[in-house]
Amino acid sequence: MTPWTRRDFVASAIGLLAMRGLSVTRFGLFGKMTAQPGQRDALLAHMLTAARLVGDAPGCELYVVHTSPTEPDALWVSEAWRSEADHAASLDAPGVRELIAKARPLIAGMSDRVVTVPVGGKGLPVG
Amino acid sequence: MTPWTRRDFVASAIGLLAMRGLSVTRFGLFGKMTAQPGQRDALLAHMLTAARLVGDAPGCELYVVHTSPTEPDALWVSEAWRSEADHAASLDAPGVRELIAKARPLIAGMSDRVVTVPVGGKGLPVG
Repeated sequence: MTPWTRRDFVASAIGLLAMRGLSVTRFGLFGKMTAQPGQRDALLAHMLTAARLVGDAPGCELYVVHTSPTEPDALWVSEAWRSEADHAASLDAPGVRELIAKARPLIAGMSDRVVTVPVGGKGLPVG
Repeated sequence: MTPWTRRDFVASAIGLLAMRGLSVTRFGLFGKMTAQPGQRDALLAHMLTAARLVGDAPGCELYVVHTSPTEPDALWVSEAWRSEADHAASLDAPGVRELIAKARPLIAGMSDRVVTVPVGGKGLPVG
């Protein structure tokens, strides 16, 4: 018998909540990353790789990487998840921790973090 | 011969740019709306209607309406468009100006506007 991973536990907890008819609200994040000078495009490449990795993780509904028209070192990331637990579990998706280790030295700072509850609109699954 | 609308002009301009091989960058917006006290859910309903109206407008890639887990009067809207011109033209989509007129009295303020260039990731069309 293999031990449960954190992801197994999270998926099971979500399943139990769903069976009991309790609503699990979506989890949204906006945030800004400022790259070390001259490293914005290298960081952007890592973040687009991150988008591919976690885009396949259970419960990832949106993961969009943006540059800024006015701040050459800035990136923005906007995310929508089926639940906060799915977001937390995505750190265990294959390759994610390795990618964080590679990206971290390129990051001068993170700021402007906003947590939301995505409700609906174009680009979100219905329900 | 019918006169050109603003939307015709915008669509034509985008087409000409595309034919010339010039890149048209995407246009992204995050922004916060604060409802008049007690009016958050009424404003939310209008904004979800707005999402349906402009979600069908040419060039609308994402239009997501969010509530806040910490601020009961707040809504966030995140948008991604094929171009800034498509975003501007969406004001002429059927019903949009009427909807703005209905929503405006429910809005106490708008703030925290961030303009971005959406580059890629889960939820955006490729390219």
